[in-house]
Amino acid sequence: FDIVVLPGDGIGPEITAAAVDVLHAVGARHDRDFRFHRHLIGGAAIDATGEALPAATLDAAQRADAVLLGAVGGPKWSDPKAPVQPEQGLLAIRKAMGLYANLRPVAPHPAALGASPIKPHLLNGVDMIVVRELTGGVYFGEKTRTATTASDLCEYSVAEIERVVRRACTLARTRRGKVTSVDKANVLETSRLWRETATRVVADEFPDITLEHQLVDSMAMHLLSRPRDYDVVVTENMFGDILTDEASMLAGSLGLLPSASLGEGRAGLYEPIHGSAPDIAGRGIANPYATILSAALLLRHSLGLEQEARCIEDAVSAALDAGVFTADLAPQGQAVSTREATAAVL
Amino acid sequence: FDIVVLPGDGIGPEITAAAVDVLHAVGARHDRDFRFHRHLIGGAAIDATGEALPAATLDAAQRADAVLLGAVGGPKWSDPKAPVQPEQGLLAIRKAMGLYANLRPVAPHPAALGASPIKPHLLNGVDMIVVRELTGGVYFGEKTRTATTASDLCEYSVAEIERVVRRACTLARTRRGKVTSVDKANVLETSRLWRETATRVVADEFPDITLEHQLVDSMAMHLLSRPRDYDVVVTENMFGDILTDEASMLAGSLGLLPSASLGEGRAGLYEPIHGSAPDIAGRGIANPYATILSAALLLRHSLGLEQEARCIEDAVSAALDAGVFTADLAPQGQAVSTREATAAVL
Ligand SMILES: CC(C)[C@H](C(=O)O)[C@@H](O)C(=O)O
Ligand SMILES: CC(C)[C@H](C(=O)O)[C@@H](O)C(=O)O
Repeated sequence: FDIVVLPGDGIGPEITAAAVDVLHAVGARHDRDFRFHRHLIGGAAIDATGEALPAATLDAAQRADAVLLGAVGGPKWSDPKAPVQPEQGLLAIRKAMGLYANLRPVAPHPAALGASPIKPHLLNGVDMIVVRELTGGVYFGEKTRTATTASDLCEYSVAEIERVVRRACTLARTRRGKVTSVDKANVLETSRLWRETATRVVADEFPDITLEHQLVDSMAMHLLSRPRDYDVVVTENMFGDILTDEASMLAGSLGLLPSASLGEGRAGLYEPIHGSAPDIAGRGIANPYATILSAALLLRHSLGLEQEARCIEDAVSAALDAGVFTADLAPQGQAVSTREATAAVL
Repeated sequence: FDIVVLPGDGIGPEITAAAVDVLHAVGARHDRDFRFHRHLIGGAAIDATGEALPAATLDAAQRADAVLLGAVGGPKWSDPKAPVQPEQGLLAIRKAMGLYANLRPVAPHPAALGASPIKPHLLNGVDMIVVRELTGGVYFGEKTRTATTASDLCEYSVAEIERVVRRACTLARTRRGKVTSVDKANVLETSRLWRETATRVVADEFPDITLEHQLVDSMAMHLLSRPRDYDVVVTENMFGDILTDEASMLAGSLGLLPSASLGEGRAGLYEPIHGSAPDIAGRGIANPYATILSAALLLRHSLGLEQEARCIEDAVSAALDAGVFTADLAPQGQAVSTREATAAVL
């Protein structure tokens, strides 16, 4: 299997190195041959080539079986007047690879509940996957700028909504059969189209699925007050960005949450949902679990290696059970380094 | 003082009646003459006149010293294909009265912490005000719709950003002197304009204010993990909508949170941040505190009656201290009715 690794910026190199070590170990144990190909993206790519997504990177990613990404961005490149920003590399690769469905599972691990700001009794049994639309909406609409005004266009087509709703429903069939579609249909035209389309797709193609609609503002509340009620949550790009960072607090730390970005084929892009954490970059203390768990999703969704994926997930779970916590999980206690956490998983 | 009362839909009539009773009592005690003028808005207005904001309502609101609003909307009017929706009445009155700054204070009351999903130790000392831009952004940009596509335009001008940032900074001067500006400057052009403008306004006009910038996705997390860090939070319309519903969970219930919508003059519109709760409408069990506290904000910001405002706030506080909880605050315990809660405040 050819796996393209895009370390990116900040803690990206440290956490992708940890995940690659784990993939090597799983490959050795299960007799799988993984070949890793490192390429540049984000600020590191801007420094080396002037572009946030060099052609060589995109080309390699499009030919690979899967892509594992660290994170992009940092203060070094965050001047809003710079000609190109690291984040553009990430948006461009998602778009170019057609990765319209971003799966973000949120299932708090019992050992990490102490790190969550939420009361533990609300978290027992929480197990949801947010399916965030990833290649449309206000992220990709036309932008304008004058000296005194700016604009961003949010656009959605029926086809864009249908395919991501279908993906959410298909996923819900393997789970508890419930889909919560989140929009702002009392204000936005794109949300009204979203709601109508979701309703029709489920009625016509997934009559076995229970569909409910929630307004995004209510959802921001209900995610906290009754998180157990959610199974699969499907929403547009920007709402998904906000709600998944919020939902990460259910799991105790952003440092535990992996993601899979999928398109029509099997190839996908896998990345932790956290950012490049420039403040702790290079210090060897970043939490590698989200990236390691992203590697597990990579095995499952792009390589079809379910057993190997479980093997990684069980190992992370065992490390958490054993109290192997990086600083984000054990802020007052004894935190381990990135290497020690990785060693525990290995 | 002329106060226009817009009960609206669902629980709106019950909760505005409670707040009017309290204003009457404060007026009697402090020898103030409040005259109340009831008008239609939202679904109730659609039923009576076909319009969500009848001209008579807007006219009365524009001539009044202040407006007290309940809530609008409900399933009866929520067919997306209906020619007019109740929410349009609310958006239209905000826009027509030029109420660009929506103040949403979040300061958890010790007696209500039990109802919050957040761990109590994180909530001690939380005291923030979100200043939500209310007449711009994607709420008011051009919308398009075809059979297969929809769009919403998000627009901001420098002048729109300047005035709301100034309002936030002026408010911060009466508090702890810190302003957190929330945007998505790594993706949106409107957010880049927002960030630049906020930075310049503070540097030029409020050098005594500490300004920090947060991305909206991080903010959705930090609101939960370190809520004490925030003093005044300023953000655009849609982000403010989502983040304040989320922040309401810090206070235990949406039913405790008032809001003030202000423009250039003294007149303003005051409403609870919760909705019309059609599921419990007419049952006499709605929480009236958020509307009563909105009446206190009305006294403070539009009528300049600080002592009377405090009098109401102290009474609500005493009712909460005495454990007078409606069902949203005491889901397992002994919940009181809207009337009983109001009587406790009176
Ligand atoms: C870095 C940024 C552009 C990105 C996004 O908003 O999609 C990130 O927040 C994420 O959620 O993957
Ligand atoms: C009813 C709706 C249009 C409104 C909004 O989104 O502004 C409400 O959610 C609010 O926060 O006041």
